[in-house]
Amino acid sequence: MASQDELKKQVGYKAVDDYVRSGMVVGLGTGSTAFFAVERVGQKLKSGELQDVVAIPTSVRTKEQAEALGIPLVTLDTHSRLDVAIDGADSVDPDGNLVKGGGGALFREKIVEKASDKFVVIVDQSKMCDALGPHFMLPIEILPFCHEHTMRCLEALPSMNGAKAVLRMGSSANNKCDGDEIAVSDNGCYLVDMKCTSPITDAVRLADDIIKVVGVVEHGLFCGMTDHVIIAGTDGIEVKDVPK
Amino acid sequence: MASQDELKKQVGYKAVDDYVRSGMVVGLGTGSTAFFAVERVGQKLKSGELQDVVAIPTSVRTKEQAEALGIPLVTLDTHSRLDVAIDGADSVDPDGNLVKGGGGALFREKIVEKASDKFVVIVDQSKMCDALGPHFMLPIEILPFCHEHTMRCLEALPSMNGAKAVLRMGSSANNKCDGDEIAVSDNGCYLVDMKCTSPITDAVRLADDIIKVVGVVEHGLFCGMTDHVIIAGTDGIEVKDVPK
Repeated sequence: MASQDELKKQVGYKAVDDYVRSGMVVGLGTGSTAFFAVERVGQKLKSGELQDVVAIPTSVRTKEQAEALGIPLVTLDTHSRLDVAIDGADSVDPDGNLVKGGGGALFREKIVEKASDKFVVIVDQSKMCDALGPHFMLPIEILPFCHEHTMRCLEALPSMNGAKAVLRMGSSANNKCDGDEIAVSDNGCYLVDMKCTSPITDAVRLADDIIKVVGVVEHGLFCGMTDHVIIAGTDGIEVKDVPK
Repeated sequence: MASQDELKKQVGYKAVDDYVRSGMVVGLGTGSTAFFAVERVGQKLKSGELQDVVAIPTSVRTKEQAEALGIPLVTLDTHSRLDVAIDGADSVDPDGNLVKGGGGALFREKIVEKASDKFVVIVDQSKMCDALGPHFMLPIEILPFCHEHTMRCLEALPSMNGAKAVLRMGSSANNKCDGDEIAVSDNGCYLVDMKCTSPITDAVRLADDIIKVVGVVEHGLFCGMTDHVIIAGTDGIEVKDVPK
Protein backbone atom coordinates (compact mmCIF):
# COMPACT_ATOMS: atom_id res chain seq x y z
CA MET A 1 0.00 0.00 0.00
CA ALA A 2 1.31 3.41 -0.97
CA SER A 3 2.30 5.78 1.86
CA GLN A 4 0.61 9.16 2.32
CA ASP A 5 3.68 10.84 0.84
CA GLU A 6 3.71 8.46 -2.12
CA LEU A 7 0.08 9.35 -2.87
CA LYS A 8 0.82 13.07 -2.70
CA LYS A 9 3.72 12.57 -5.08
CA GLN A 10 1.54 10.67 -7.55
CA VAL A 11 -1.07 13.46 -7.84
CA GLY A 12 1.54 16.22 -7.82
CA TYR A 13 3.44 14.62 -10.70
CA LYS A 14 0.27 13.75 -12.64
CA ALA A 15 -0.97 17.36 -12.49
CA VAL A 16 2.24 18.60 -14.09
CA ASP A 17 2.39 15.77 -16.63
CA ASP A 18 -1.23 16.30 -17.75
CA TYR A 19 -1.63 20.09 -17.64
CA VAL A 20 1.73 21.87 -17.93
CA ARG A 21 3.14 22.46 -21.42
CA SER A 22 6.16 24.39 -22.73
CA GLY A 23 5.68 28.15 -22.91
CA MET A 24 3.11 28.30 -20.11
CA VAL A 25 2.79 30.66 -17.13
CA VAL A 26 2.21 28.33 -14.16
CA GLY A 27 0.91 29.03 -10.64
CA LEU A 28 2.68 26.98 -7.98
CA GLY A 29 0.70 26.13 -4.85
CA THR A 30 1.79 25.77 -1.24
CA GLY A 31 1.80 22.75 1.05
CA SER A 32 2.91 19.15 1.28
CA THR A 33 1.06 18.02 -1.88
CA ALA A 34 1.85 21.06 -4.04
CA PHE A 35 5.50 20.48 -3.06
CA PHE A 36 5.63 17.50 -5.44
CA ALA A 37 4.12 19.48 -8.34
CA VAL A 38 6.84 22.09 -7.91
CA GLU A 39 9.45 19.32 -7.78
CA ARG A 40 8.10 17.87 -11.04
CA VAL A 41 8.19 21.21 -12.89
CA GLY A 42 11.82 21.57 -11.80
CA GLN A 43 12.69 18.06 -13.03
CA LYS A 44 11.09 18.55 -16.43
CA LEU A 45 12.69 21.96 -16.98
CA LYS A 46 16.06 20.47 -16.10
CA SER A 47 15.64 17.50 -18.46
CA GLY A 48 14.48 19.83 -21.24
CA GLU A 49 11.11 18.08 -21.53
CA LEU A 50 9.56 21.46 -20.61
CA GLN A 51 10.88 24.73 -22.00
CA ASP A 52 10.09 28.44 -21.60
CA VAL A 53 7.95 27.88 -18.53
CA VAL A 54 7.74 30.72 -16.02
CA ALA A 55 6.03 30.34 -12.66
CA ILE A 56 4.33 32.42 -9.96
CA PRO A 57 4.70 31.02 -6.43
CA THR A 58 1.91 31.39 -3.85
CA SER A 59 4.16 31.70 -0.78
CA VAL A 60 7.68 32.48 0.31
CA ARG A 61 8.17 28.77 1.00
CA THR A 62 7.22 27.76 -2.54
CA LYS A 63 9.31 30.61 -3.95
CA GLU A 64 12.38 29.26 -2.17
CA GLN A 65 11.74 25.70 -3.35
CA ALA A 66 11.25 26.88 -6.95
CA GLU A 67 14.39 29.03 -6.88
CA ALA A 68 16.43 26.10 -5.55
CA LEU A 69 15.18 24.02 -8.50
CA GLY A 70 16.03 26.74 -11.04
CA ILE A 71 12.42 27.45 -12.08
CA PRO A 72 12.21 30.98 -13.60
CA LEU A 73 9.83 33.09 -11.52
CA VAL A 74 7.67 36.09 -12.39
CA THR A 75 4.92 37.97 -10.54
CA LEU A 76 1.29 38.94 -11.15
CA ASP A 77 2.46 42.51 -11.66
CA THR A 78 4.22 41.48 -14.88
CA HIS A 79 1.99 38.49 -15.80
CA SER A 80 -1.68 39.08 -14.99
CA ARG A 81 -2.94 35.88 -16.69
CA LEU A 82 -1.73 32.35 -15.92
CA ASP A 83 -2.34 29.28 -18.07
CA VAL A 84 -2.64 26.85 -15.18
CA ALA A 85 -2.31 26.81 -11.40
CA ILE A 86 -1.80 23.65 -9.33
CA ASP A 87 -2.44 23.49 -5.60
CA GLY A 88 -3.64 21.30 -2.76
CA ALA A 89 -6.71 21.90 -0.57
CA ASP A 90 -7.80 21.18 2.98
CA SER A 91 -11.33 20.09 1.98
CA VAL A 92 -13.12 19.58 -1.34
CA ASP A 93 -16.91 19.32 -1.69
CA PRO A 94 -18.80 17.51 -4.53
CA ASP A 95 -19.08 20.81 -6.52
CA GLY A 96 -15.31 21.38 -6.34
CA ASN A 97 -15.64 24.18 -3.77
CA LEU A 98 -12.63 24.22 -1.45
CA VAL A 99 -11.53 25.21 2.00
CA LYS A 100 -7.91 26.31 1.84
CA GLY A 101 -5.46 28.31 3.87
CA GLY A 102 -4.89 26.24 6.98
CA GLY A 103 -1.22 27.01 6.34
CA GLY A 104 -1.88 30.76 6.20
CA ALA A 105 -1.09 31.36 2.51
CA LEU A 106 -4.73 31.80 1.49
CA PHE A 107 -4.48 35.33 0.11
CA ARG A 108 -1.57 34.68 -2.25
CA GLU A 109 -3.05 31.36 -3.28
CA LYS A 110 -6.39 32.96 -4.14
CA ILE A 111 -5.02 35.95 -6.04
CA VAL A 112 -2.83 33.67 -8.19
CA GLU A 113 -5.40 30.93 -8.73
CA LYS A 114 -8.18 33.40 -9.62
CA ALA A 115 -5.92 34.82 -12.32
CA SER A 116 -5.43 31.40 -13.89
CA ASP A 117 -7.29 30.06 -16.93
CA LYS A 118 -7.22 26.58 -15.42
CA PHE A 119 -7.04 25.55 -11.76
CA VAL A 120 -6.04 21.98 -10.91
CA VAL A 121 -6.55 20.78 -7.34
CA ILE A 122 -4.49 17.85 -6.07
CA VAL A 123 -5.54 15.94 -2.95
CA ASP A 124 -5.69 12.55 -1.36
CA GLN A 125 -9.03 10.84 -0.82
CA SER A 126 -9.26 11.97 2.83
CA LYS A 127 -9.84 15.60 1.73
CA MET A 128 -13.03 14.80 -0.19
CA CYS A 129 -16.23 15.51 1.76
CA ASP A 130 -20.00 15.72 1.29
CA ALA A 131 -20.04 19.31 2.64
CA LEU A 132 -17.37 21.74 3.80
CA GLY A 133 -17.24 22.76 7.40
CA PRO A 134 -16.88 20.33 10.26
CA HIS A 135 -13.79 18.60 8.79
CA PHE A 136 -11.54 21.62 8.77
CA MET A 137 -11.61 25.10 10.25
CA LEU A 138 -12.36 27.90 7.80
CA PRO A 139 -9.59 30.53 7.91
CA ILE A 140 -10.37 34.22 7.35
CA GLU A 141 -7.77 37.00 7.05
CA ILE A 142 -8.86 40.25 8.74
CA LEU A 143 -7.42 43.69 9.48
CA PRO A 144 -5.96 44.10 12.98
CA PHE A 145 -8.00 47.31 13.63
CA CYS A 146 -11.03 46.43 15.81
CA HIS A 147 -10.53 42.73 15.09
CA GLU A 148 -12.71 41.67 18.04
CA HIS A 149 -15.62 43.55 16.48
CA THR A 150 -14.94 41.94 13.10
CA MET A 151 -14.88 38.50 14.73
CA ARG A 152 -18.28 39.17 16.32
CA CYS A 153 -19.67 40.31 12.94
CA LEU A 154 -18.45 37.05 11.37
CA GLU A 155 -20.04 34.92 14.10
CA ALA A 156 -23.31 36.85 13.65
CA LEU A 157 -23.71 35.96 9.95
CA PRO A 158 -26.78 33.69 9.62
CA SER A 159 -25.03 31.70 6.89
CA MET A 160 -22.18 30.99 9.35
CA ASN A 161 -24.58 28.71 11.16
CA GLY A 162 -23.22 29.33 14.67
CA ALA A 163 -19.52 28.81 13.92
CA LYS A 164 -17.17 30.30 16.52
CA ALA A 165 -14.26 32.60 15.59
CA VAL A 166 -10.85 31.72 17.05
CA LEU A 167 -7.95 34.14 16.63
CA ARG A 168 -4.86 32.30 15.42
CA MET A 169 -1.91 32.53 17.78
CA GLY A 170 1.69 31.51 17.28
CA SER A 171 5.05 32.84 16.27
CA SER A 172 3.95 33.10 12.62
CA ALA A 173 0.77 32.74 10.58
CA ASN A 174 2.00 29.35 9.40
CA ASN A 175 2.44 28.12 12.92
CA LYS A 176 -0.85 26.91 14.33
CA CYS A 177 0.72 25.95 17.65
CA ASP A 178 -0.24 27.94 20.70
CA GLY A 179 1.74 31.04 21.42
CA ASP A 180 1.44 34.21 23.41
CA GLU A 181 1.45 36.43 20.33
CA ILE A 182 -1.26 36.92 17.72
CA ALA A 183 -0.08 35.36 14.46
CA VAL A 184 0.47 37.88 11.65
CA SER A 185 0.12 37.05 7.94
CA ASP A 186 2.41 38.13 5.09
CA ASN A 187 0.02 41.05 4.60
CA GLY A 188 0.36 42.20 8.20
CA CYS A 189 -3.15 40.91 8.97
CA TYR A 190 -4.62 38.56 11.56
CA LEU A 191 -6.02 35.10 10.83
CA VAL A 192 -9.27 33.90 12.33
CA ASP A 193 -10.25 30.21 12.20
CA MET A 194 -14.01 29.64 12.09
CA LYS A 195 -14.87 26.49 14.01
CA CYS A 196 -17.89 25.05 12.21
CA THR A 197 -19.95 22.56 14.17
CA SER A 198 -22.33 21.77 11.32
CA PRO A 199 -21.80 21.40 7.56
CA ILE A 200 -21.74 24.53 5.34
CA THR A 201 -24.93 24.05 3.37
CA ASP A 202 -24.40 26.91 0.90
CA ALA A 203 -20.70 27.67 0.43
CA VAL A 204 -21.28 30.25 -2.34
CA ARG A 205 -23.71 32.23 -0.18
CA LEU A 206 -21.38 32.08 2.84
CA ALA A 207 -18.43 33.27 0.75
CA ASP A 208 -20.54 36.21 -0.45
CA ASP A 209 -21.53 37.13 3.10
CA ILE A 210 -18.01 36.84 4.55
CA ILE A 211 -16.31 39.07 1.98
CA LYS A 212 -18.83 41.86 2.64
CA VAL A 213 -18.01 42.04 6.35
CA VAL A 214 -15.97 45.24 6.82
CA GLY A 215 -12.52 44.28 8.09
CA VAL A 216 -12.30 41.03 6.10
CA VAL A 217 -9.39 40.95 3.67
CA GLU A 218 -9.83 37.44 2.25
CA HIS A 219 -11.14 34.02 3.25
CA GLY A 220 -10.41 30.36 2.68
CA LEU A 221 -13.54 29.43 0.70
CA PHE A 222 -12.59 28.94 -2.95
CA CYS A 223 -15.91 28.66 -4.81
CA GLY A 224 -16.42 28.18 -8.53
CA MET A 225 -12.67 28.23 -9.21
CA THR A 226 -11.73 24.54 -9.60
CA ASP A 227 -11.51 22.99 -13.09
CA HIS A 228 -10.09 19.56 -12.25
CA VAL A 229 -9.55 17.60 -9.03
CA ILE A 230 -6.91 14.88 -9.07
CA ILE A 231 -7.60 12.50 -6.19
CA ALA A 232 -5.18 9.88 -4.89
CA GLY A 233 -6.80 6.88 -3.23
CA THR A 234 -5.37 3.53 -2.21
CA ASP A 235 -7.03 2.05 -5.32
CA GLY A 236 -5.32 4.53 -7.66
CA ILE A 237 -5.76 7.99 -9.05
CA GLU A 238 -9.09 9.51 -10.09
CA VAL A 239 -9.55 12.73 -12.08
CA LYS A 240 -12.77 14.66 -11.58
CA ASP A 241 -13.67 17.44 -14.01
CA VAL A 242 -15.79 20.20 -12.49
CA PRO A 243 -18.44 21.59 -14.85
CA LYS A 244 -18.63 25.40 -14.81
CA MET B 1 -25.84 84.51 1.81
CA ALA B 2 -24.33 81.96 4.19
CA SER B 3 -20.73 80.98 3.58
CA GLN B 4 -19.75 77.37 2.79
CA ASP B 5 -18.49 76.96 6.35
CA GLU B 6 -21.71 78.41 7.78
CA LEU B 7 -23.73 75.86 5.77
CA LYS B 8 -21.54 73.00 7.02
CA LYS B 9 -22.02 74.21 10.57
CA GLN B 10 -25.80 74.36 10.18
CA VAL B 11 -26.13 70.72 9.06
CA GLY B 12 -23.52 69.49 11.55
CA TYR B 13 -25.35 71.10 14.45
CA LYS B 14 -28.80 70.03 13.23
CA ALA B 15 -27.72 66.36 12.98
CA VAL B 16 -26.68 66.37 16.64
CA ASP B 17 -29.73 68.35 17.78
CA ASP B 18 -32.16 66.03 15.98
CA TYR B 19 -30.61 62.60 16.42
CA VAL B 20 -28.29 62.48 19.46
CA ARG B 21 -29.85 61.85 22.88
CA SER B 22 -28.37 61.25 26.33
CA GLY B 23 -27.06 57.72 26.93
CA MET B 24 -26.29 57.05 23.28
CA VAL B 25 -23.23 55.50 21.61
CA VAL B 26 -22.40 57.88 18.76
CA GLY B 27 -20.18 57.46 15.69
CA LEU B 28 -18.25 60.62 14.80
CA GLY B 29 -17.36 61.15 11.15
CA THR B 30 -14.31 62.72 9.54
CA GLY B 31 -13.99 65.83 7.41
CA SER B 32 -14.85 69.51 7.30
CA THR B 33 -18.63 68.99 7.75
CA ALA B 34 -18.44 66.24 10.37
CA PHE B 35 -16.10 68.59 12.27
CA PHE B 36 -19.10 70.72 13.27
CA ALA B 37 -21.12 67.71 14.48
CA VAL B 38 -18.23 66.75 16.75
CA GLU B 39 -18.03 70.34 17.97
CA ARG B 40 -21.77 70.32 18.79
CA VAL B 41 -21.57 67.04 20.76
CA GLY B 42 -18.74 68.57 22.80
CA GLN B 43 -20.75 71.76 23.47
CA LYS B 44 -23.86 69.87 24.60
CA LEU B 45 -21.90 67.53 26.87
CA LYS B 46 -20.16 70.51 28.46
CA SER B 47 -23.44 72.40 29.01
CA GLY B 48 -25.05 69.26 30.46
CA GLU B 49 -27.76 69.21 27.81
CA LEU B 50 -26.40 65.77 26.81
CA GLN B 51 -25.26 63.23 29.40
CA ASP B 52 -23.71 59.74 29.36
CA VAL B 53 -22.84 59.91 25.68
CA VAL B 54 -19.84 57.89 24.52
CA ALA B 55 -18.43 58.19 21.01
CA ILE B 56 -16.40 56.21 18.48
CA PRO B 57 -14.27 58.36 16.16
CA THR B 58 -13.63 57.34 12.52
CA SER B 59 -10.11 58.73 12.26
CA VAL B 60 -7.15 59.87 14.30
CA ARG B 61 -8.05 63.46 13.40
CA THR B 62 -11.57 63.15 14.77
CA LYS B 63 -10.25 61.31 17.84
CA GLU B 64 -7.98 64.24 18.62
CA GLN B 65 -10.76 66.79 18.15
CA ALA B 66 -13.13 64.78 20.39
CA GLU B 67 -10.48 64.32 23.09
CA ALA B 68 -9.78 68.06 23.10
CA LEU B 69 -13.51 68.67 23.63
CA GLY B 70 -13.70 66.15 26.49
CA ILE B 71 -16.01 63.70 24.68
CA PRO B 72 -15.64 60.22 26.28
CA LEU B 73 -14.40 57.78 23.64
CA VAL B 74 -14.81 54.00 23.29
CA THR B 75 -14.03 51.52 20.49
CA LEU B 76 -15.90 48.93 18.45
CA ASP B 77 -14.08 46.24 20.40
CA THR B 78 -15.99 47.24 23.55
CA HIS B 79 -19.15 48.64 21.87
CA SER B 80 -20.19 46.66 18.79
CA ARG B 81 -23.51 48.50 18.28
CA LEU B 82 -23.92 52.27 17.90
CA ASP B 83 -27.17 54.20 18.18
CA VAL B 84 -26.32 56.79 15.57
CA ALA B 85 -23.40 57.79 13.34
CA ILE B 86 -23.03 61.20 11.70
CA ASP B 87 -20.70 61.86 8.77
CA GLY B 88 -20.23 63.84 5.59
CA ALA B 89 -19.94 62.41 2.06
CA ASP B 90 -18.22 63.31 -1.20
CA SER B 91 -21.26 62.46 -3.36
CA VAL B 92 -24.85 61.38 -2.62
CA ASP B 93 -27.17 59.84 -5.23
CA PRO B 94 -31.02 59.96 -5.15
CA ASP B 95 -31.14 56.55 -3.35
CA GLY B 96 -28.83 57.76 -0.59
CA ASN B 97 -25.86 55.76 -1.89
CA LEU B 98 -22.60 57.56 -1.19
CA VAL B 99 -19.06 57.94 -2.41
CA LYS B 100 -16.80 58.57 0.56
CA GLY B 101 -13.18 58.36 1.48
CA GLY B 102 -11.51 61.07 -0.55
CA GLY B 103 -9.77 61.89 2.71
CA GLY B 104 -8.50 58.33 3.12
CA ALA B 105 -10.56 57.37 6.22
CA LEU B 106 -12.98 55.17 4.31
CA PHE B 107 -12.28 51.92 6.15
CA ARG B 108 -12.79 53.26 9.67
CA GLU B 109 -15.81 55.27 8.53
CA LYS B 110 -17.43 52.20 6.98
CA ILE B 111 -16.77 49.80 9.88
CA VAL B 112 -18.24 52.31 12.37
CA GLU B 113 -21.19 53.41 10.24
CA LYS B 114 -22.16 49.82 9.33
CA ALA B 115 -22.33 49.03 13.05
CA SER B 116 -24.76 51.89 13.68
CA ASP B 117 -28.54 51.55 14.00
CA LYS B 118 -28.96 54.93 12.32
CA PHE B 119 -26.66 56.69 9.84
CA VAL B 120 -27.13 60.43 9.26
CA VAL B 121 -25.31 62.01 6.30
CA ILE B 122 -24.63 65.75 6.37
CA VAL B 123 -23.74 67.59 3.16
CA ASP B 124 -24.15 70.82 1.30
CA GLN B 125 -26.24 70.92 -1.88
CA SER B 126 -23.20 70.63 -4.16
CA LYS B 127 -22.67 66.98 -3.09
CA MET B 128 -26.09 65.83 -4.33
CA CYS B 129 -26.00 64.20 -7.79
CA ASP B 130 -28.17 62.23 -10.19
CA ALA B 131 -25.64 59.39 -10.32
CA LEU B 132 -22.33 58.70 -8.60
CA GLY B 133 -19.17 58.67 -10.63
CA PRO B 134 -17.96 61.56 -12.73
CA HIS B 135 -18.23 64.12 -9.91
CA PHE B 136 -15.74 62.50 -7.58
CA MET B 137 -13.13 59.77 -7.85
CA LEU B 138 -14.05 56.47 -6.21
CA PRO B 139 -11.37 55.46 -3.69
CA ILE B 140 -10.52 51.79 -3.10
CA GLU B 141 -8.15 50.48 -0.42
CA ILE B 142 -6.03 47.54 -1.60
CA LEU B 143 -3.22 45.35 -0.29
CA PRO B 144 0.27 46.39 -1.40
CA PHE B 145 1.14 42.84 -2.60
CA CYS B 146 0.78 42.71 -6.42
CA HIS B 147 -1.14 45.99 -6.39
CA GLU B 148 -0.60 46.58 -10.12
CA HIS B 149 -2.39 43.31 -10.84
CA THR B 150 -5.23 44.27 -8.49
CA MET B 151 -5.56 47.64 -10.25
CA ARG B 152 -5.84 45.88 -13.62
CA CYS B 153 -8.51 43.54 -12.19
CA LEU B 154 -10.49 46.58 -10.99
CA GLU B 155 -10.27 48.29 -14.38
CA ALA B 156 -11.42 45.07 -16.07
CA LEU B 157 -14.73 44.85 -14.14
CA PRO B 158 -17.58 45.37 -16.66
CA SER B 159 -19.56 47.30 -14.03
CA MET B 160 -16.61 49.72 -13.70
CA ASN B 161 -17.56 51.03 -17.13
CA GLY B 162 -14.01 51.83 -18.27
CA ALA B 163 -12.87 53.78 -15.19
CA LYS B 164 -9.09 54.10 -14.86
CA ALA B 165 -7.24 53.21 -11.63
CA VAL B 166 -4.82 55.82 -10.29
CA LEU B 167 -2.53 54.92 -7.37
CA ARG B 168 -2.64 57.66 -4.73
CA MET B 169 0.71 59.29 -4.05
CA GLY B 170 1.74 61.67 -1.30
CA SER B 171 3.35 61.77 2.08
CA SER B 172 0.22 60.28 3.70
CA ALA B 173 -3.06 58.76 2.62
CA ASN B 174 -4.80 62.00 3.53
CA ASN B 175 -2.57 64.00 1.29
CA LYS B 176 -3.77 63.90 -2.28
CA CYS B 177 -0.98 66.14 -3.48
CA ASP B 178 1.64 64.66 -5.71
CA GLY B 179 4.57 63.00 -4.06
CA ASP B 180 7.30 60.53 -4.86
CA GLU B 181 6.05 57.96 -2.39
CA ILE B 182 2.96 55.76 -2.58
CA ALA B 183 0.47 56.95 0.05
CA VAL B 184 -0.15 54.38 2.82
CA SER B 185 -3.42 54.14 4.78
CA ASP B 186 -3.83 53.64 8.54
CA ASN B 187 -4.12 49.92 7.75
CA GLY B 188 -0.79 49.84 5.91
CA CYS B 189 -2.61 49.57 2.58
CA TYR B 190 -2.55 51.50 -0.70
CA LEU B 191 -5.36 53.72 -1.99
CA VAL B 192 -6.48 53.63 -5.59
CA ASP B 193 -8.72 56.35 -7.02
CA MET B 194 -10.99 55.15 -9.81
CA LYS B 195 -11.45 57.89 -12.37
CA CYS B 196 -14.97 57.42 -13.71
CA THR B 197 -15.70 59.08 -17.04
CA SER B 198 -19.37 58.09 -17.08
CA PRO B 199 -22.02 57.83 -14.33
CA ILE B 200 -22.19 54.67 -12.19
CA THR B 201 -25.49 53.23 -13.36
CA ASP B 202 -25.75 50.46 -10.74
CA ALA B 203 -23.84 51.36 -7.56
CA VAL B 204 -24.99 48.25 -5.63
CA ARG B 205 -23.79 45.90 -8.36
CA LEU B 206 -20.46 47.74 -8.67
CA ALA B 207 -19.92 47.57 -4.89
CA ASP B 208 -20.56 43.83 -5.02
CA ASP B 209 -18.08 43.34 -7.85
CA ILE B 210 -15.34 45.49 -6.29
CA ILE B 211 -15.34 43.77 -2.91
CA LYS B 212 -14.91 40.35 -4.56
CA VAL B 213 -11.69 41.36 -6.33
CA VAL B 214 -8.87 39.60 -4.48
CA GLY B 215 -6.60 42.24 -2.98
CA VAL B 216 -9.39 44.73 -2.24
CA VAL B 217 -9.70 45.59 1.46
CA GLU B 218 -12.53 48.14 1.31
CA HIS B 219 -14.01 50.73 -1.04
CA GLY B 220 -15.69 54.12 -0.92
CA LEU B 221 -19.16 53.09 -2.14
CA PHE B 222 -21.57 53.15 0.82
CA CYS B 223 -24.75 51.51 -0.45
CA GLY B 224 -27.95 50.89 1.50
CA MET B 225 -26.49 52.38 4.68
CA THR B 226 -27.95 55.93 4.82
CA ASP B 227 -31.08 56.62 6.90
CA HIS B 228 -31.26 60.43 6.65
CA VAL B 229 -29.52 63.06 4.53
CA ILE B 230 -29.40 66.61 5.90
CA ILE B 231 -28.71 68.97 3.02
CA ALA B 232 -27.69 72.61 3.37
CA GLY B 233 -28.63 74.85 0.49
CA THR B 234 -28.64 78.61 0.14
CA ASP B 235 -32.43 78.48 0.61
CA GLY B 236 -32.16 76.63 3.91
CA ILE B 237 -31.85 73.10 5.24
CA GLU B 238 -33.66 70.07 3.82
CA VAL B 239 -33.90 66.63 5.47
CA LYS B 240 -34.35 63.62 3.20
CA ASP B 241 -35.35 60.27 4.72
CA VAL B 242 -34.09 57.28 2.79
CA PRO B 243 -36.57 54.35 2.68
CA LYS B 244 -34.94 50.97 3.37
